Amino acid sequence: MRRLSAFPPASANVATILATPSQRDGHAITVEGSIRTIRNQKQRSFVELGDGSTAYTLQAVLDPQLAEGLGTGTSVAITGTWQAAPPQKEQPYELKAKAVKIIGAADAEALTNSIMQKYPIQKKYHSAEYLRTLPHLRLRTPVNALLARLRSECDYHLASYFRERDFVRVQPPIITSSDCEGAGEVFTVSSKPSSARAKDEVEATDSEKDGFFKDPKFLTVSSQLHLEAFVHEHQKVWTLSPTFRAEKSDTPRHVAEFWMLEAEIRTESLKDVMNLIEDMIPDLVGKLQDAGFMEEILYANRGAESANAEGAQFPELLRNRWQRLMQTPWPRITYGTAVKRLHEALDSKEAKFMYEPSWTTGLQLEHEKFIATAFGQGSPVFVTDYPRQIKPFYMLPSTLENGVENPQNNTVACFDLLLPELCEVVGGSMREHRLQQLSQSMHHHGLNVPAAGVLGQTITNSEVLPSSERGNLEWYADLRRYGSVPHGGFGLGFDRLLAYLSGTSNIKDVVPWPRYHGRCDC
Amino acid sequence: MRRLSAFPPASANVATILATPSQRDGHAITVEGSIRTIRNQKQRSFVELGDGSTAYTLQAVLDPQLAEGLGTGTSVAITGTWQAAPPQKEQPYELKAKAVKIIGAADAEALTNSIMQKYPIQKKYHSAEYLRTLPHLRLRTPVNALLARLRSECDYHLASYFRERDFVRVQPPIITSSDCEGAGEVFTVSSKPSSARAKDEVEATDSEKDGFFKDPKFLTVSSQLHLEAFVHEHQKVWTLSPTFRAEKSDTPRHVAEFWMLEAEIRTESLKDVMNLIEDMIPDLVGKLQDAGFMEEILYANRGAESANAEGAQFPELLRNRWQRLMQTPWPRITYGTAVKRLHEALDSKEAKFMYEPSWTTGLQLEHEKFIATAFGQGSPVFVTDYPRQIKPFYMLPSTLENGVENPQNNTVACFDLLLPELCEVVGGSMREHRLQQLSQSMHHHGLNVPAAGVLGQTITNSEVLPSSERGNLEWYADLRRYGSVPHGGFGLGFDRLLAYLSGTSNIKDVVPWPRYHGRCDC
Repeated sequence: MRRLSAFPPASANVATILATPSQRDGHAITVEGSIRTIRNQKQRSFVELGDGSTAYTLQAVLDPQLAEGLGTGTSVAITGTWQAAPPQKEQPYELKAKAVKIIGAADAEALTNSIMQKYPIQKKYHSAEYLRTLPHLRLRTPVNALLARLRSECDYHLASYFRERDFVRVQPPIITSSDCEGAGEVFTVSSKPSSARAKDEVEATDSEKDGFFKDPKFLTVSSQLHLEAFVHEHQKVWTLSPTFRAEKSDTPRHVAEFWMLEAEIRTESLKDVMNLIEDMIPDLVGKLQDAGFMEEILYANRGAESANAEGAQFPELLRNRWQRLMQTPWPRITYGTAVKRLHEALDSKEAKFMYEPSWTTGLQLEHEKFIATAFGQGSPVFVTDYPRQIKPFYMLPSTLENGVENPQNNTVACFDLLLPELCEVVGGSMREHRLQQLSQSMHHHGLNVPAAGVLGQTITNSEVLPSSERGNLEWYADLRRYGSVPHGGFGLGFDRLLAYLSGTSNIKDVVPWPRYHGRCDC
Repeated sequence: MRRLSAFPPASANVATILATPSQRDGHAITVEGSIRTIRNQKQRSFVELGDGSTAYTLQAVLDPQLAEGLGTGTSVAITGTWQAAPPQKEQPYELKAKAVKIIGAADAEALTNSIMQKYPIQKKYHSAEYLRTLPHLRLRTPVNALLARLRSECDYHLASYFRERDFVRVQPPIITSSDCEGAGEVFTVSSKPSSARAKDEVEATDSEKDGFFKDPKFLTVSSQLHLEAFVHEHQKVWTLSPTFRAEKSDTPRHVAEFWMLEAEIRTESLKDVMNLIEDMIPDLVGKLQDAGFMEEILYANRGAESANAEGAQFPELLRNRWQRLMQTPWPRITYGTAVKRLHEALDSKEAKFMYEPSWTTGLQLEHEKFIATAFGQGSPVFVTDYPRQIKPFYMLPSTLENGVENPQNNTVACFDLLLPELCEVVGGSMREHRLQQLSQSMHHHGLNVPAAGVLGQTITNSEVLPSSERGNLEWYADLRRYGSVPHGGFGLGFDRLLAYLSGTSNIKDVVPWPRYHGRCDC
C-alpha cells in the first residue's frame, strides 16, 4: 500500500515559463523571484525577474505605483497576465503585472525608515575579485546561481552515468589516519574543549591534550586507498566527496578544499580506466549541451564580454572546449614521448621553458601546457607511464601492461589527463595488487612498513591485531594480505572540471566558499 | 555530433543472473566474484559465489581438482554451464563449472609457500564488535556489502526525488569559521608543515604557528547556515555531506563523522518542511521495498538471527519499521503536549524516568522513547514548538505560525522527528528571516553581534567590509541585511536512517570507517 506523493511538485518557475512561452498566452500567472534590474520610466517600470532556475530573465511590465519599494535584489511574487510583447522587444512574451507582493526587501535606498544597508551587488559589472569578497552574497548573482545549478546537474548526471553501469557510490571517511599521496601538505584535526572555545583566540595546543583520537589525524587528501577496500566486493565504486590540501600556492587552479570524483574498478588494464573517463566526460558534456547549459553560460557572461578584451573571444573558446571534449578518442602519449617532444621544441627554439624538461623532474605547468597544445591541438591528452621514482608507492609497474615500450621497467601504469589551458584535471593508475611488491615499494618510499612477514618471510603468527594498533598503512597492505584483485582508478578534480566547462578562469569562483591560504570566509 | 558510449556496459553479475535464472538455462556463462563458502566433498565441491551486486549467492558445483587453492574470500572467475539444480536444492539453478580462474587468492591455508595470513573473517558468525576492529575487511562480508549498496541506492533515490521537485544539490564547505548550533564539541583544523610530518608524534602546537588560515577554523557541525545563503536565489536546495561533532559520548547513536542530509526551502510554514520529510522518507522506503532490499536485509542477517535471542524477532521488527515509515500522516504533537503526557505517565506510575521531565530541560532519550511509543505506537512522531530558551538562536518564534496554542510567545517554530527505538533522526525549523529579530537573538545568545546598526539604529555607513574582516556570524546576518525571504529546513542523520532501515543496532556498523572517541582506523 503505497501512498501518493504529498509534497507539492514544483510550480511553474521562470525556466518552465520561458521554455514554452506561447503555452500560457493570455493566462493569469504568478511568478516568484528576485529583481535582477528595474528600469523606472514615467508611464511604467520594467522588471527583469530571475529565480535561479535559468540564467534568463522574465520581463514584467508594472504601472509606477506597483514599482514602489522595489530595487535590485528585492524578492517578489508578481501576478499578472502573460501576453505577447511589442514586436521590437527581445523576448516574445512579457508579464503585464496586476499585483506585486514583496516577499523580501533588499535595498535600503528603496525603503524608508530601514536599518538595512545598500545592497553591495548592483546592476553594473562587478569583477570576480570583488565578488569573491562577498561569497555569501555573490550566490545571488545570475552567474553564480548558474554555477550552482551546473554543479548540481553534473552531480546528478554523473550519478546516473555510474549507476547505469552498476557502480556503487560510496562515502569514504574525511578524517583519516594516513596521507595517501605521501606528498603535499595536510590539515591536522584536533578537538577543542568547549570551555576553551568561548575565547576565540585559544591555541590548538590546549586541545591536543584532550586527544579525541589517540594519534594526530588528518583531513583526507584522496579517498583512493579507501575506495580500493571496496573493490574486492563491489566490482566498481565511485565517490564525489570533499578533499583537502593545505597548499599555500595561490594559483587559479588550487583551493585548499575541493570535491574530487574518484572511481576504482576491477581491471587488468590501464586502458579500461582511461576508456571510462573518455566515455564519462563526453557523456556528461553531451547531456549538459542538450540541456542548453552552453548557451546559458554565454548569456550569463555577456556582461564580462563587454567589460574586457579577453571576453570577446569567450564564446568561441567555450564552444571549442565543449566540442573537443565530446570528440573522442583523445590522444594518448607516454611520458617518455612527451619529454622527447619537449626537448625537440627546446632544440628547435619552438618553445622556451623556465624549467628544463627532464626524465626525473616531472612535468611543470609550462610543459603540460605545451604538450596539451602540441599533441592535443584543442583536445584533452592522456600522458601515460611516468617514471616510477616520481610517482606514489601504490602504482603498478608499466611492464605488467601490454605494449608499453619500456624494457627498463622504470615506469608505472599511470596517466594524467591534460586539458588545454587548465592542464591536469584527472590522475589515475593501476594499483599494485601484489602484497610482496607493495611492501617493497612502501619500504622503498620510507612508509610505515607492515609488520613481520611482508618482506618475504613466511608468516607463522596468524594472530590478527586490531587495525588501530598497527602501522599507519598496514590496513592497506591487508587488502593484499587477505586477497586482492587487479584494479585501477582515478581522481578527477570536480571543481576544476566545472571551471573548465563554465569558462571560469579561477577555480575560486566556481567554489561557493573557497578556502585557500589566508582565506576561509563564513 | 554525439559519440556512442565506449565504456562497456555492466556484464551479467550475480544479481542479474539470479533475477531471471531460467533465461540462461543451458547456456555457457562466466561469473566473477568472491567465494563466500566452499564445501569440499569427495566427488565434488560446492561454492557459494557472491559479488556485491546482491546479498544472495550463486551456487557453483566443481569437480575436486577445480577446487584446489580455493578458500573463503578467494576471488575467482568461474566458467561453466548454467543448469537446473537437483529438486531438493534451495536454488532452482546452479553453475556446473568447467574452468576456474583465480583472480585473487585469499587464504594462506589453501596455498603453499605463501606469505599471506589466514583470512580473519571465516564462515562462522562474527559479532559486530569483532568486525568493527577490521573495518577494511568487513566490507567484504555480505552484510557490509549490502549496507554499501543500500547507502548508494538511498543517495541515488534521494537525488532523484529532489531533482524531480526542482531542488538544487549544493556542496557546502567542510572547513568553516563558525559553529552553527552553538552547542556540541567541534574539531579544530590546522595545517602541519611537511617537515614536521615525518615525525608522526609531533604536537599540533608547531603547526598552529604557520597559520594557514588567519584564525582557528572548524569542521562543520551543520551546513544549514550556508544552505540558507542559497535560498535567496534558488527556491529549494539540499545537500548530503559530511558533518562532524567531537562528542565523546560513546552511544550506539553517535559517531564523530557522519553524513547529513540537509534541505532548505522557501516557505512561510513549518508544515511545508514537515510535509517534505513525510513525503520524502516514504517515497524512499517504497523504492527500496520495490527493489527487494527488505528481503535481502533479512537474508543477509539470517546468521545473526540464529546467533542470539533478539535475532528471532528481527524480521518482524524490520517489516514493521518499513511499513510504518510508509504509512502517513505521522502524528504531530507540540513539546508542551509531550511534557504534559510525560508528567501524566509519572503521576499514574505508567513510566519511570531517570530525569524529571520539565519545560526547561528538553527531552532526554528516555523521554523521547516514551513519547515515540505513546504517541506513535510504531509510527514516527513529530514533536514541534520547543521552548525558545533551549533552542539555537536562528529559529523563528512559533507565534508567527498559524494555530499554535502558545500565547506566551516562548516557543519556536521547530520540530524533531522521533523514530521508535532510535529516536531523533531529523531536526528542523523555520529560520528567523528578519534582521532586527535575528540580531537581538544573536545578542541574547552571546554570539558575535553584527557591527553597528543591527540593533535598531539607522545605518549611515554604506561601506561593505570584506566578510573575512567581520564578526564570525556577521555574514549570516548579511543574508537578512541585504534581503531575505521566509524559509525553513531540516537536517537528517543519514547514517542513523540507514541504521534504522537496515536494523543495524549500532550506527558504527553502517559507517564504513566509523570515527568516534579514541578510534579512527585507517
